[in-house]
Amino acid sequence: MKSYRKELWFNILTRRSFVNITPQVEEALRASEIREGMILVNAMHITASVFINDDASGLHQDYEHWLEELAPHEPTSQYKHNQTGEDNADAHLKRQIMGREVVVAVTDGKLDFGPWEQIFYGEFDGRRRKRVLVKIIGE
Amino acid sequence: MKSYRKELWFNILTRRSFVNITPQVEEALRASEIREGMILVNAMHITASVFINDDASGLHQDYEHWLEELAPHEPTSQYKHNQTGEDNADAHLKRQIMGREVVVAVTDGKLDFGPWEQIFYGEFDGRRRKRVLVKIIGE
Amino acid sequence: MKSYRKELWFNILTRRSFVNITPQVEEALRASEIREGMILVNAMHITASVFINDDASGLHQDYEHWLEELAPHEPTSQYKHNQTGEDNADAHLKRQIMGREVVVAVTDGKLDFGPWEQIFYGEFDGRRRKRVLVKIIGE
Repeated sequence: MKSYRKELWFNILTRRSFVNITPQVEEALRASEIREGMILVNAMHITASVFINDDASGLHQDYEHWLEELAPHEPTSQYKHNQTGEDNADAHLKRQIMGREVVVAVTDGKLDFGPWEQIFYGEFDGRRRKRVLVKIIGE
Repeated sequence: MKSYRKELWFNILTRRSFVNITPQVEEALRASEIREGMILVNAMHITASVFINDDASGLHQDYEHWLEELAPHEPTSQYKHNQTGEDNADAHLKRQIMGREVVVAVTDGKLDFGPWEQIFYGEFDGRRRKRVLVKIIGE
Repeated sequence: MKSYRKELWFNILTRRSFVNITPQVEEALRASEIREGMILVNAMHITASVFINDDASGLHQDYEHWLEELAPHEPTSQYKHNQTGEDNADAHLKRQIMGREVVVAVTDGKLDFGPWEQIFYGEFDGRRRKRVLVKIIGE
């Protein structure tokens, strides 16, 4: 069994954003030389997500609006977590909706994807350096 | 390390439905002849889910009602994604709640499940052919 | 390829609770002697979650309050699932928000975690014995 590990670094300039990281994940897969196996892509921070969906800006605006409805940022005082001086409790909630990680099949050296699947980094508390982990196991 | 891949095809006749796919996943596992490892089951489409829960029709009606409350289909004009002529933005949201994939342990040639765990395909934008991927790695 | 399996048992005395199970998962990883691979940690019951987030009591109170808003326990009669005599339909919904499982990279014999990542068992229908599965594959 072979394994491969790579960190992807981000410094999102806004509080929230979605970034298509499929090209970086594909590059890691090529570098791994693994042909059959599984690839794990996960946020290493607990106020961010990695998820798979469509690369469509309208949809991403819908996600942004919907997540603000389900777990609003304001008023920040509504969350106990923010009593410690933080203002990012909502980011911890949003991340649970969108998920921490994805696991993707590797077949014939490629991400084994359906027609529209793309991998996104979802930032919910940006304006600082944060990481995503890519781990690949297989042969 | 051995690996095995199979696609399961669906053509759900309604917009939304839950289908128990445990027997098909078990059949793929038997065909793989893998005794120890992990199995990934994921929707290959971004308006569908694969998830694990109970095979109970009342619960599935509760999920249907609850997902409609959290991410209503109507009015379709409330979503930016639908301005492109689509009407399935809600399906992209519902799928994030229910998840894209499950990873299940394979032990002694079987799905290593608790007493009530069953695998479901969750369709949120049906009436066309769509796929689920089963990928198994192990020995 | 090596594999390792362990069950963790819980008997939570309240209906709902979050328990940090990172030490038990680390102990299983040490016992496995696996240095590179992936570890799956999943609830074996369908009214419980395994998830990764911060070990902060204020945040856990925020999760509790938020999940009660998104999927209230009362009135229990609002759920079809409860017509069978159960009162735990809300627990099946809450578990979908928080997730069934996490997959974590194993690197150099350790959980390959970011600075604040901790693994939690989320109980939504306690007061009885329930299990979490730890499965590790790698070398």
